Amino acid sequence: MKLFESLNVAGMVIPNRVMVPAMVTRLSGEDGLVNKDITDRYVRYAQGGAGLIVIEAMAVHHAKSGPLLRISDDRDVPGLGDLVRRIHDTSDSKVVPQIIHFLKISKSGWRQTVDMLSLAEIDRIVEEFGDAVVRARAAGFDGAELHSAHAYTLASFLSRANPRKDDYGGDTLEGRLHLITRIFANIRRKVGNDFPVGVRYLADEFIKDGYTVNDAKLIGLRLAQLGAAYLSLSVGGKFEDAIHVAGQVPYPYTGYSGDRCMPGDWYPAVPHAQFSAEVKAFIRAHGFNTPVATAGKISDPGDAERLVATGAVDIVGIARGLLADPDWPNKVRHGEADRIVKCDYCNVCKHLDGTHMRVICALWPQGSLQAPPDDRSTQAPRWSADGANLVATVGQGKAALKWNKAAGAARYDIFRTDPLGHVEVADAVKVTRWEDHNLLAGMPYRYHVCVYGAAGQGGVPSNTVTVSLPMPDVSARA
Amino acid sequence: MKLFESLNVAGMVIPNRVMVPAMVTRLSGEDGLVNKDITDRYVRYAQGGAGLIVIEAMAVHHAKSGPLLRISDDRDVPGLGDLVRRIHDTSDSKVVPQIIHFLKISKSGWRQTVDMLSLAEIDRIVEEFGDAVVRARAAGFDGAELHSAHAYTLASFLSRANPRKDDYGGDTLEGRLHLITRIFANIRRKVGNDFPVGVRYLADEFIKDGYTVNDAKLIGLRLAQLGAAYLSLSVGGKFEDAIHVAGQVPYPYTGYSGDRCMPGDWYPAVPHAQFSAEVKAFIRAHGFNTPVATAGKISDPGDAERLVATGAVDIVGIARGLLADPDWPNKVRHGEADRIVKCDYCNVCKHLDGTHMRVICALWPQGSLQAPPDDRSTQAPRWSADGANLVATVGQGKAALKWNKAAGAARYDIFRTDPLGHVEVADAVKVTRWEDHNLLAGMPYRYHVCVYGAAGQGGVPSNTVTVSLPMPDVSARA
Repeated sequence: MKLFESLNVAGMVIPNRVMVPAMVTRLSGEDGLVNKDITDRYVRYAQGGAGLIVIEAMAVHHAKSGPLLRISDDRDVPGLGDLVRRIHDTSDSKVVPQIIHFLKISKSGWRQTVDMLSLAEIDRIVEEFGDAVVRARAAGFDGAELHSAHAYTLASFLSRANPRKDDYGGDTLEGRLHLITRIFANIRRKVGNDFPVGVRYLADEFIKDGYTVNDAKLIGLRLAQLGAAYLSLSVGGKFEDAIHVAGQVPYPYTGYSGDRCMPGDWYPAVPHAQFSAEVKAFIRAHGFNTPVATAGKISDPGDAERLVATGAVDIVGIARGLLADPDWPNKVRHGEADRIVKCDYCNVCKHLDGTHMRVICALWPQGSLQAPPDDRSTQAPRWSADGANLVATVGQGKAALKWNKAAGAARYDIFRTDPLGHVEVADAVKVTRWEDHNLLAGMPYRYHVCVYGAAGQGGVPSNTVTVSLPMPDVSARA
Repeated sequence: MKLFESLNVAGMVIPNRVMVPAMVTRLSGEDGLVNKDITDRYVRYAQGGAGLIVIEAMAVHHAKSGPLLRISDDRDVPGLGDLVRRIHDTSDSKVVPQIIHFLKISKSGWRQTVDMLSLAEIDRIVEEFGDAVVRARAAGFDGAELHSAHAYTLASFLSRANPRKDDYGGDTLEGRLHLITRIFANIRRKVGNDFPVGVRYLADEFIKDGYTVNDAKLIGLRLAQLGAAYLSLSVGGKFEDAIHVAGQVPYPYTGYSGDRCMPGDWYPAVPHAQFSAEVKAFIRAHGFNTPVATAGKISDPGDAERLVATGAVDIVGIARGLLADPDWPNKVRHGEADRIVKCDYCNVCKHLDGTHMRVICALWPQGSLQAPPDDRSTQAPRWSADGANLVATVGQGKAALKWNKAAGAARYDIFRTDPLGHVEVADAVKVTRWEDHNLLAGMPYRYHVCVYGAAGQGGVPSNTVTVSLPMPDVSARA
């Protein structure tokens, strides 16, 4: 598979094209230092065979925040160095820190915007990013990634909503690009040209008056000109449309742009990769070979392979899918895709992040802080003597499924075959019942349930049931 | 061109695939009756050669509103009949009314939602739509179109945000489909099976927790099963994210979903047609040949032809482009695409609608209430003796262009060639200056200006200028 070919990213050779994008874990303390839980989280990805691991956003500055890693002081370096060593000792995965600057925000809903920054404060941000990259290099990271996406400082400068009237805004593309251009120049002065620095930024802001892929192409071209090691594209995740709950710090993934950033189960698969493909084609047309990474509801190995094999993108970011199962890369490479613990896009992880809780996957065993080991020695779960006994009842526009418990079950996947014969995993649950609310009356839908143990070992599939909702009564009323 | 092949739409033969989608004109009075201005507007589209003209939304009920056509009373029929006759006397264009039901809304921002409707009120809506279709037939329309898109009653039932707990919602697809299913059954009882009734609905709501193309496919299949004559897809335009200005009735095109519904100049061309193509492919796979129409920032004849020729869709809706130039179809058919008055997506029309002003195009001659006639006898505009004298200056991230006035000029199109050699009309203006804020420094951009008379007759193109912004100063501060 093309997905498992190596790639030279500005000197950093990643062994395959599967990337763990930066995901907040909320596992650090207020001190911002690496701890055992964080180390375990990222070593787990290395065990699973990801080609590039982007460590969750760590602050380049000292501003107050919730639990968040820091790379703002030399005291942060030893812990980060240990983390890097543990990952390098585990696999040939490459590892970079995502480095972030954010502005102030309060529980009242007030937030600092880029037009409130003085020129001296902007100068300080430039230095802070440069110093953070120096620390990343000192810690042994293979490179670094500037967080210029979502609701944070660099993205707010790139945004069409940037309200500054001076050289850092002024309603022009060059104004919006000025800060990141200066930051790159400063980084080069401080660490030289041989340390790979990639950038994550938005392909589309998905907010009113926000920028679209038209601007993303031009931003990508500038970043390529500046020598960005790679471009990693995300979408949305903005404060502009965040829903403010009284007494809580606004969370930039609560509005529509947040839906797009982490598309839930009602979204089609791979809804945003075409933007990354457009950016890649555009910079290639300008003669730049900068690798381009995409992300957003990618979980099917066929989709991932297609994105790379067709040349649409160079690297495939899988966030929630790798949280659910860090062994996704190794399982796919070894032809064991059927053993993947498949993300069902329930977004429990997103809600945990939004409430500053430690981020876990709802599909992990109860009480686990990490994905369970891929323990092939454990037995597959077994139905009791009377089997799965899957039954379905219909009514009120729904099909209600229930089935027996299986011994050793960690989860049940509901396989749904639509009237055209397409099979999909409609959901993954820990209980033994599920409802389908998305049926067209008069059409046949078929289901079976597969049971899995914690390491993904599958039991015997259940019996199959077919349902059809009665056509609604549309006769005239009295 | 495939675009100019006829199509049988459930018995209504449209002479070509170009559709005028329903566009509010605000030309009617409070009485809701057809008047001369409205007649002139639609006869103009017939003169221009559109295959299908959808008359702006007219209410099926008596609720208070601003200026809006009505089809809620038999007294509305004679005026509508005259309008239809005038159109049929002008061309072979087919004409249908878009019929709408909307809920109450107030200047306080309060709005009635579908869960506030009693079952008796729902029954009345069912009858009102049926009665309106009877009136449409009596008026001589070739068919009718149910408005089930944007922020209005039928769309609010289809929405994932439908909060009803009963048969008309209940968090199920069938619940959300129940009202429109009843309406179709009622229409069939009242007008029989031989009167074409199409439906406009949303391919994607573009709101938080809103539905995506996944649901649009299923909704389209149900509509096809119900015998919809055609499916016409739009996106967005919802109250859920509308921006409420104190003292004004909320306008459902002010939020992000409004951006998507009428994408402005910063959006790529044809941003939504792939959804329509997905819906079409889905219903075809289920054996339905229902024609599918798309819309959304389509103006280039090549794009329109490609959409039809590849089979992506069957009908191409062009709203703002035909408002700017109702002669678009005839000009394209006759190989005169260079004479088209090209919409520049400035959205003045949208703002006029939003403030309940009469909707015109900013590119029409000053003071015109209608597009000017395609008067080939008028002379092309002429530069004075010293020519166009286009000059450009650069600075502050911008290129500022200015040029001489031309005698008889109605507008100037700014042709911009990007560093890859792609030419586009960057803007259309009535003044003799323009600024480009979207340049990457260090890259060459080339411009020339073309001048046009009111009927689209073009003068001699201006001289060409090339600019390049200086690279920004990114040296370290003191």
